[in-house]
Amino acid sequence: MNVYERALIMHEDNKGKIEIKSKVQVTNKEELSLAYSPGVAEPCRKIVEDEKNIYKYTSKGNMVAVITDGSAVLGLGNIGPKAALPVMEGKSILLKNFSNVDSFPLCLDTQDVDEIINICKNLAPSLGGINLEDISAPRCVEIERALIEQLDIPVFHDDQHGTAIITTAALLNSCKLTDKDPKTLKVVVCGAGAAGSSVVRMIHKYGVDDIISVDVDGIISSKRNNLDFLQKEILSITNKNDIEGNLSDAMKNADVFIGVSAGNIVTKEMIKSMNKDPFVFAMANPVPEIMPDIAKEAGAKIVGTGRSDYPNQINNVLAFPGIFRGALDIGAKKINEEMKLAAAYAIASVIDERDLSEDYIVPSPFDERVVKVVAKAVAEKAIETNVIRNK
Amino acid sequence: MNVYERALIMHEDNKGKIEIKSKVQVTNKEELSLAYSPGVAEPCRKIVEDEKNIYKYTSKGNMVAVITDGSAVLGLGNIGPKAALPVMEGKSILLKNFSNVDSFPLCLDTQDVDEIINICKNLAPSLGGINLEDISAPRCVEIERALIEQLDIPVFHDDQHGTAIITTAALLNSCKLTDKDPKTLKVVVCGAGAAGSSVVRMIHKYGVDDIISVDVDGIISSKRNNLDFLQKEILSITNKNDIEGNLSDAMKNADVFIGVSAGNIVTKEMIKSMNKDPFVFAMANPVPEIMPDIAKEAGAKIVGTGRSDYPNQINNVLAFPGIFRGALDIGAKKINEEMKLAAAYAIASVIDERDLSEDYIVPSPFDERVVKVVAKAVAEKAIETNVIRNK
Repeated sequence: MNVYERALIMHEDNKGKIEIKSKVQVTNKEELSLAYSPGVAEPCRKIVEDEKNIYKYTSKGNMVAVITDGSAVLGLGNIGPKAALPVMEGKSILLKNFSNVDSFPLCLDTQDVDEIINICKNLAPSLGGINLEDISAPRCVEIERALIEQLDIPVFHDDQHGTAIITTAALLNSCKLTDKDPKTLKVVVCGAGAAGSSVVRMIHKYGVDDIISVDVDGIISSKRNNLDFLQKEILSITNKNDIEGNLSDAMKNADVFIGVSAGNIVTKEMIKSMNKDPFVFAMANPVPEIMPDIAKEAGAKIVGTGRSDYPNQINNVLAFPGIFRGALDIGAKKINEEMKLAAAYAIASVIDERDLSEDYIVPSPFDERVVKVVAKAVAEKAIETNVIRNK
Repeated sequence: MNVYERALIMHEDNKGKIEIKSKVQVTNKEELSLAYSPGVAEPCRKIVEDEKNIYKYTSKGNMVAVITDGSAVLGLGNIGPKAALPVMEGKSILLKNFSNVDSFPLCLDTQDVDEIINICKNLAPSLGGINLEDISAPRCVEIERALIEQLDIPVFHDDQHGTAIITTAALLNSCKLTDKDPKTLKVVVCGAGAAGSSVVRMIHKYGVDDIISVDVDGIISSKRNNLDFLQKEILSITNKNDIEGNLSDAMKNADVFIGVSAGNIVTKEMIKSMNKDPFVFAMANPVPEIMPDIAKEAGAKIVGTGRSDYPNQINNVLAFPGIFRGALDIGAKKINEEMKLAAAYAIASVIDERDLSEDYIVPSPFDERVVKVVAKAVAEKAIETNVIRNK
């Protein structure tokens, strides 16, 4: 049986992947009177007195909603809210298994941006955070920005930032291993949607100055007349010489290729046209932009993919569990850019410099040190950037 | 320490009462590839093929949202969504502990009826059912009716129907014990909001013909000019002679008093003015309309309250866990009036006729037979009334 058949059986056997657990017993009158009426009135009254007490007497502080509209699910596209549920349950249990963050999936029956924003806002009172998931670009960015602006709980769209954070960690360790300075690198980012735009912003913040962003219509330049608001933003920090062209043109003399686009769109020749010993992070899933062995043959020094069956798996699960853990533990009101970059540095730091190698630039998703160092780094940066709620 | 102090400590020690549990392990690459990418794509595809598969491959079928706007919480009033959270978590864990229904609380930051309806509708794809909770009347009825009409998952407002179901069960067993015919009874229902209106409708369906509904302004009659839509509905099945007056007037020569109103509003004299051997169900919480010992002294034959420290506790927890269990197990699209009445009969049936006594007309909330018989009766009635979804 292949992985899909095995997964289907696993999902059917368990009827999904998530259930609720009661932290307290209710097996007799005394327990019932504490967990419910009349005793429960007392924590209610304490929260009326001071709404901050909600973090003291309820599960809010550790409870995240994983929210989607099903408009951009995995590589499956706009499959709608119901078909998206297995992925959202997956996200929920990863949060639980990797960082003990509680969460439940909410798959919304609307794809209207304003309505999604309004629903999320109205759900906030009982939530400690919101993980937006698999919402198509650029709508996801509009939704996330509005919620970050309007809510006092962390809101994080993993498809944008998760990949960006791990990619930055991989780039950071690749530079460390090969003694390169990010300021001198020419980086091509292929894919200019949710993930691509966040990758561009983050590596720019990390110090990369020469970035070319490419989408299905070619290089993002001022000559293009079909750019969405997100791509216009990206343009302001990429393509300094405002060149035009396709992916092959972009890749000539580049030092790094970062792909968050589609399978098999990069050729051996394109890799050969890059500068010597390039880094190739081909993260399209399940089929990478170029297969690792072909990229290596063509001269790539370091290759990473989203796949677990090749070295250097650039996997979001390295980032979001520790990020939420850190943000919730410290009582952060937001997850800002500084906190995300701190997470990238933290992930990179898990691998001792002496252990770094071409096949080991990012830690394993099952390396238990990762969540801890990410959570710590995120929490410290939250304090430093002053985004902690009053306690 | 009193119950409130103990409850506060319990809530703080546990940081609330609810957490999430993963049904599957994710400790290695194989498990990750089944629970998440790439394996998870397969159940997604199966749901795209046929959306009914969502019940096969996800937790939807056992996952209920406990939704409130915090407008009428316990006896605490309109304390808002945050202060309502301890109660909603309580409801969630009762569902889990009593009937293994999974649920999570959602406390909405809006009290606008249309907005609440819209949010609930848009949350439905990932939910197996909705338990509305602690929403003020008559808004709760508007919201519940709209959702029942528009959704294909069970929607149940416990404050309306929970109390009505248990009260009907208590009335049923009281009639059985005393050999009375519900058709001959004059029943006063005090309180004409969420619970009161549902009690009136249900005992009417059960067979009681002579009902007087009373609220804080007196008997609900056609002369009243301050009736809301719900009270106008109730009027159509109560007060056949269209009398006016206050609670004392209503209670003269009544056989049954049902209180879902406020503490200490019924006097000894009012009980004495009732017919011989009346039933008194004084369910205001925590202080009943009249204390049981006073009611007994005044001649009441059977007395029930909402309290656990007196006999005959009329407790909602006897109803909602089994109702959701039955509705979810059978795949019901709604919980209709017939199913609710079947639940009342089922609860009453748990006590063998030989065991019935004045102090034992409803089972204990911890009687494990209750959930089973209620679930079975509800499921059977769902089949009989043809509200099962296609499978």
